[in-house]
Amino acid sequence: MNDPVIATVNCDNLIKMALAEDITSEDVSTNAVIRGYVRGNVRLMCKQDGVICGLKVFERTFTLLDPATEVRLFAEDGDEVSAGQLLGEVSGDIRVLLSGERTALNFLQRMSGIATYTRRVAELLKGSGTRLLDTRKTTPNMRIFEKYAVRVGGGYNHRYNLSDGILLKDNHIGAAGSIKRAVEMAREYAPFVRKIEVEVENLDMCREALEAGADIIMLDNMTPEEMKRAVALIDGRAQTECSGNVTMENIKSIIDTGVDFVSSGALTHSAPILDLSLKNLRPSEQ
Amino acid sequence: MNDPVIATVNCDNLIKMALAEDITSEDVSTNAVIRGYVRGNVRLMCKQDGVICGLKVFERTFTLLDPATEVRLFAEDGDEVSAGQLLGEVSGDIRVLLSGERTALNFLQRMSGIATYTRRVAELLKGSGTRLLDTRKTTPNMRIFEKYAVRVGGGYNHRYNLSDGILLKDNHIGAAGSIKRAVEMAREYAPFVRKIEVEVENLDMCREALEAGADIIMLDNMTPEEMKRAVALIDGRAQTECSGNVTMENIKSIIDTGVDFVSSGALTHSAPILDLSLKNLRPSEQ
Amino acid sequence: MNDPVIATVNCDNLIKMALAEDITSEDVSTNAVIRGYVRGNVRLMCKQDGVICGLKVFERTFTLLDPATEVRLFAEDGDEVSAGQLLGEVSGDIRVLLSGERTALNFLQRMSGIATYTRRVAELLKGSGTRLLDTRKTTPNMRIFEKYAVRVGGGYNHRYNLSDGILLKDNHIGAAGSIKRAVEMAREYAPFVRKIEVEVENLDMCREALEAGADIIMLDNMTPEEMKRAVALIDGRAQTECSGNVTMENIKSIIDTGVDFVSSGALTHSAPILDLSLKNLRPSEQ
Amino acid sequence: MNDPVIATVNCDNLIKMALAEDITSEDVSTNAVIRGYVRGNVRLMCKQDGVICGLKVFERTFTLLDPATEVRLFAEDGDEVSAGQLLGEVSGDIRVLLSGERTALNFLQRMSGIATYTRRVAELLKGSGTRLLDTRKTTPNMRIFEKYAVRVGGGYNHRYNLSDGILLKDNHIGAAGSIKRAVEMAREYAPFVRKIEVEVENLDMCREALEAGADIIMLDNMTPEEMKRAVALIDGRAQTECSGNVTMENIKSIIDTGVDFVSSGALTHSAPILDLSLKNLRPSEQ
Amino acid sequence: MNDPVIATVNCDNLIKMALAEDITSEDVSTNAVIRGYVRGNVRLMCKQDGVICGLKVFERTFTLLDPATEVRLFAEDGDEVSAGQLLGEVSGDIRVLLSGERTALNFLQRMSGIATYTRRVAELLKGSGTRLLDTRKTTPNMRIFEKYAVRVGGGYNHRYNLSDGILLKDNHIGAAGSIKRAVEMAREYAPFVRKIEVEVENLDMCREALEAGADIIMLDNMTPEEMKRAVALIDGRAQTECSGNVTMENIKSIIDTGVDFVSSGALTHSAPILDLSLKNLRPSEQ
Amino acid sequence: MNDPVIATVNCDNLIKMALAEDITSEDVSTNAVIRGYVRGNVRLMCKQDGVICGLKVFERTFTLLDPATEVRLFAEDGDEVSAGQLLGEVSGDIRVLLSGERTALNFLQRMSGIATYTRRVAELLKGSGTRLLDTRKTTPNMRIFEKYAVRVGGGYNHRYNLSDGILLKDNHIGAAGSIKRAVEMAREYAPFVRKIEVEVENLDMCREALEAGADIIMLDNMTPEEMKRAVALIDGRAQTECSGNVTMENIKSIIDTGVDFVSSGALTHSAPILDLSLKNLRPSEQ
Repeated sequence: MNDPVIATVNCDNLIKMALAEDITSEDVSTNAVIRGYVRGNVRLMCKQDGVICGLKVFERTFTLLDPATEVRLFAEDGDEVSAGQLLGEVSGDIRVLLSGERTALNFLQRMSGIATYTRRVAELLKGSGTRLLDTRKTTPNMRIFEKYAVRVGGGYNHRYNLSDGILLKDNHIGAAGSIKRAVEMAREYAPFVRKIEVEVENLDMCREALEAGADIIMLDNMTPEEMKRAVALIDGRAQTECSGNVTMENIKSIIDTGVDFVSSGALTHSAPILDLSLKNLRPSEQ
Repeated sequence: MNDPVIATVNCDNLIKMALAEDITSEDVSTNAVIRGYVRGNVRLMCKQDGVICGLKVFERTFTLLDPATEVRLFAEDGDEVSAGQLLGEVSGDIRVLLSGERTALNFLQRMSGIATYTRRVAELLKGSGTRLLDTRKTTPNMRIFEKYAVRVGGGYNHRYNLSDGILLKDNHIGAAGSIKRAVEMAREYAPFVRKIEVEVENLDMCREALEAGADIIMLDNMTPEEMKRAVALIDGRAQTECSGNVTMENIKSIIDTGVDFVSSGALTHSAPILDLSLKNLRPSEQ
Repeated sequence: MNDPVIATVNCDNLIKMALAEDITSEDVSTNAVIRGYVRGNVRLMCKQDGVICGLKVFERTFTLLDPATEVRLFAEDGDEVSAGQLLGEVSGDIRVLLSGERTALNFLQRMSGIATYTRRVAELLKGSGTRLLDTRKTTPNMRIFEKYAVRVGGGYNHRYNLSDGILLKDNHIGAAGSIKRAVEMAREYAPFVRKIEVEVENLDMCREALEAGADIIMLDNMTPEEMKRAVALIDGRAQTECSGNVTMENIKSIIDTGVDFVSSGALTHSAPILDLSLKNLRPSEQ
Repeated sequence: MNDPVIATVNCDNLIKMALAEDITSEDVSTNAVIRGYVRGNVRLMCKQDGVICGLKVFERTFTLLDPATEVRLFAEDGDEVSAGQLLGEVSGDIRVLLSGERTALNFLQRMSGIATYTRRVAELLKGSGTRLLDTRKTTPNMRIFEKYAVRVGGGYNHRYNLSDGILLKDNHIGAAGSIKRAVEMAREYAPFVRKIEVEVENLDMCREALEAGADIIMLDNMTPEEMKRAVALIDGRAQTECSGNVTMENIKSIIDTGVDFVSSGALTHSAPILDLSLKNLRPSEQ
Repeated sequence: MNDPVIATVNCDNLIKMALAEDITSEDVSTNAVIRGYVRGNVRLMCKQDGVICGLKVFERTFTLLDPATEVRLFAEDGDEVSAGQLLGEVSGDIRVLLSGERTALNFLQRMSGIATYTRRVAELLKGSGTRLLDTRKTTPNMRIFEKYAVRVGGGYNHRYNLSDGILLKDNHIGAAGSIKRAVEMAREYAPFVRKIEVEVENLDMCREALEAGADIIMLDNMTPEEMKRAVALIDGRAQTECSGNVTMENIKSIIDTGVDFVSSGALTHSAPILDLSLKNLRPSEQ
Repeated sequence: MNDPVIATVNCDNLIKMALAEDITSEDVSTNAVIRGYVRGNVRLMCKQDGVICGLKVFERTFTLLDPATEVRLFAEDGDEVSAGQLLGEVSGDIRVLLSGERTALNFLQRMSGIATYTRRVAELLKGSGTRLLDTRKTTPNMRIFEKYAVRVGGGYNHRYNLSDGILLKDNHIGAAGSIKRAVEMAREYAPFVRKIEVEVENLDMCREALEAGADIIMLDNMTPEEMKRAVALIDGRAQTECSGNVTMENIKSIIDTGVDFVSSGALTHSAPILDLSLKNLRPSEQ
């Protein structure tokens, strides 16, 4: 999100669409009362403790509207921020500041909400060998922003989409006839740089996946007891992933299984936003 | 969402983009094991009690991928659904069912989450004369889906965007010089079909807005006591909106102010999803 | 049109498409004879008396082609200009000046034609309480430019499109069952910031619309006598619009009815252009 | 316009954009009162005598909104139609009929206006050897529709854009140094299938262009007398074009010059629309 | 390429763009002589021995132009075809057959050329344990078609793009400080489903990469002797890739090194097309 | 390709799409090891003798990714370059240099390959009156780059696409009834600036085309003997084109026929690339 390449190639178009969604013809309220160029600035304030994320997207929203806009940032993605903290300042044509405000904040609040939530969950795993993964349960057309926010929050990314990772589930296995055959077909078909992950539901399937040469084994719907046995069986010959709802309550038992990764859809589909706002807009002498 | 016009003109493109986000080249796992056309079907199951919303978007995701896909729905948007309930069935090329699953669910889960959350809040207002409004605090590029979900949940829509509604806030008023002048300028500039809403922070401003002929007055940052006085002052000559965090705790006091509308950003920015899944995929004899 | 937001979010794409329509591969004539960079300038001349409109769009056409192009403008949108007047000067790569000329003028001439025509009609209404409105009878994909030109000419905008205004016509009323029911349904369904306009054809319908609480009543197909009675009946409790062909001949009788607004499709669908041209291109020492 | 290729490749996108311009979220009025599918039909009526043009675009506007819409046409592009004549009937989802009406008519009215105006001018040339040409003075992003309308009206198309025709004007000649050199450079540079047209202002330039091998010579700013001499000089060795304002008054003198073509920007930039409307919408038993 | 998902999500847009590139307004030649619908059919003939590939893209080009077009195919992607062989038949509106011909063939010829060339090279590797890989040296905006053609020809795909595979080259290693550190950073940063490939130039680097846990080691610029030693050193603990120009001459020595994969940019950047044509267009009675 | 107009209007979009094809989310390898801005530069080296072409496209690929990138070029399109030659230097954010490398080279290598191949063939025609033409057998969505490369290599462009040139083939003639009728219909229908080319297969057809007034006659499938007779028959009254495979072997006999043009599809569909690379990336002190 912070290198110019991602911004140009993959974010700008989505930011522009979001602006057009909010401004289908013009900002009528603003243009009614401000008929020409007036320079001003406004402050980005934090209203809730959390992890800030998306500052470059926030900035880009304004500079895409008007390249003459200047954004000064007093924090960096990943910083713990607290209510009342001044995070940045935006200067430029007041009409741009007013018209871009909502869209810029909608990105920033959501990304920060995900980073904050992820950080809280990741902290529960600290010290253990288990890492936190996201999923593909992201908001449509927001994945690039949301997966980045997970990383900023301390989580790790699972595959980005259906094209860049292989996960053989029951349906794939059923279609192929067996785990062994499914893995063979995947190895034959897919770009050879792909790891092959297999979803298993019991120890027998786990053993079969291991013998088939799976790179990653996802333990699905297993009790902590079964998972522990599966991890022991696998014994480092494949990576292990537990796909489950990690909560304050069950976190201990998941860690105890010794699984390498635990994935959580909630990181991206149910994190509440972090409250932020633009305050104190005023004309500036130039 | 349910008429062909919205779908064609405003949703299809966003659905296609979401599919392309998840399938940048192909569904490698599926294509590895299923090399040709196999017909199958899969069930849409509810895993959590709530309000279902977005069924047509769910359907459209599959038919856009492949018009030959058939979707049978056993519920309608707005229905209260419960864990374990069968909501629909999708039949067609198994590769299409597998490739479209995640995107279709990402839309449906999020829209249902918003409808569910909105319904819960709207129920708190039942019996009062106060209605629940959404805001522009929506997820970027999801507004058309999210505003619809609010309505399905029993809420009402505030303006759609900056172009189709006028809301004069402190900055607009400051730029114009006074509430009176700001309202005049807006009336002169904006399409005459727009209502003019003014945000006020105290009784004096409220009186001024009323005299200026505001159609809607937003009471911002007022105590319930002040709001009650403001509503009495306005006495039906303008509609009133309270923009605040409506919670179980404060709901009673908001209703008591007699305000016409209360708006809540949380409806769209912080509702958790409703858990749904596709289950029991299997080949079907045709 | 003059703030950077509208330009960036809503005009640039249409200008780029218009350029691509005129340059599907390259400007063959120009590239045949000018093989490299030569700096030059050219003058924007007025060839017919009228109201100039669209100067920023004219400028943007050139700067989108090449940001290094400089445009100096000696008039402002809304100015009365006269044949022979120098309106501006464009400097830059001669190939850019030649390739952008037609597209830039096509926008400017058309917008100025509409502003000129609107000004003429608006002047007929001067001194009366009746204002001139545009309609949705605009050229496809030109609405943002044409509605702006109406405003510059002294007219007012009716709703921008089907999404941001409510107008209940006979078909809507028929579908709802009655005016009363149609207004209720609209109030229930539409964003509450929308005014509700009802089209009526006689005094009975007018009375019904008024009782239903219509914000605006459109008097359709009525004689001046009937309109006068309708306006008297409404007596300021709703705004009134007469949708008819305003001409030199009938203007007096329309004003006499006391109607608040008169709308005219001809402003945008039948105004001839204002004749303008680029002259005296020549190389400039740099 | 009538073959599926043009429609698919070059018109559909523009029609869809026009629909999106008029429906940024939904048709609020219609959706407020019609909550589900109701089948209906509506009649396309002519309200003014003229030449109809654009019927397939009209049809496509509805079928793009909803492929289930049926359009029956009782006239063909190019037909002389008269006020009161029934031109077609559209059947389908009433919401589609209402939402597509304005956009469909905006295309049809404008195209018919151009065809009507062109037909009137072309008739003035009938019997002479002089043909009527259009120009690139078209409405931005409407060229494909407008050039077609000119042809339907009995005019001929000049080049479509800057890429597919060569026209060497004073600036090109100046840059090249001489007409001779400009023509040589164009012949060397441009695809060899392009004819080369040269704009001349007097007999000397005309002679030079002829000697340089110009395929077409445009006589610019010449008196009828000069033109007559130029045509005599050229004597069929190149085609001749007079670029001027053809009017009732000057038409005779232009024809008398014996010029092959006369081009007129007014065909596309200043023709008023032809008045058409959709009437008698009503539900249909199915 | 053969499942509806890839076609819809990733190919249609590129095919439509290619059609628009060839038909910026209309097929003038065809529309000049064929003024209305005439049904006809045409035969797809092979003019050169090779491997056919892209038949579905060929078909889609016509059905995108006009869904009423019917394409019958007498071969399948991957078939060895020979000069004179009838490969298919296209029936429909003759204007569609003529307008789509070139674009459809441009795809088919190029894809078949790549498949043919790949098959020839892959055959050289037959019987050995070494597999043939493609690269990212594809024609811009043709990757999805070209990578598929490689697979049809018997090759295997390397990573699809910069986002879905990790390849640490000298510059990455230099930036990180060491191979060890680069691998660690990649493992920390990248989605955990990515294999990590490291490019090495000598045995020391090879050893370091192995110790760092590289999944794939690319042997760059090594002599066959060195490669053989590297493969021995690695001994199956990582996959090995030789990135070099595989030719008739050096193929034997590459195989002898025992390397797992050999990649070749020439497959996609320098394969000549396979000659194919549409013949015997004629009207068909319907 | 070298004027700002073509770049902006017709190339930028294709370059951006090519970048997005190679970077669907981010350059994972680069971002893993380079976490922030580091300035560096890299050299563009020639690895094979040939004709360089596409340097501005190469440059634009980097500046579109990041406008702060600086590209210095030491050669010009059309220059003969040789293995080992330094052609340019790119400076900027190292992440940009690494992420843009492959796409920039894919354009440059392909365009240079075509220019090189074209130059070699064009040289065979040197001294004769016969010129070398390209065809529409280009790579989909690469035509603007490939036709330019042909010109840089010393070839000439045939029509750009189906819309800007008329070529009446057997099917068109068949549909019209005769060559005479086909030419008449084309002259009536097409923009009058189009030349009319007719494809003939024998002397009778040739004579008929000539009498019909064809501007260009394409001699198809004729022996050198027949072509010579056809050229004699035409005797300069139309231009002549031989559409055939020009090779070292048959070149002499084609020239001897005295035909004006010979077209070759191989220029664009089968030229191998020119080998180029970016070398010696290193951080630069700034």
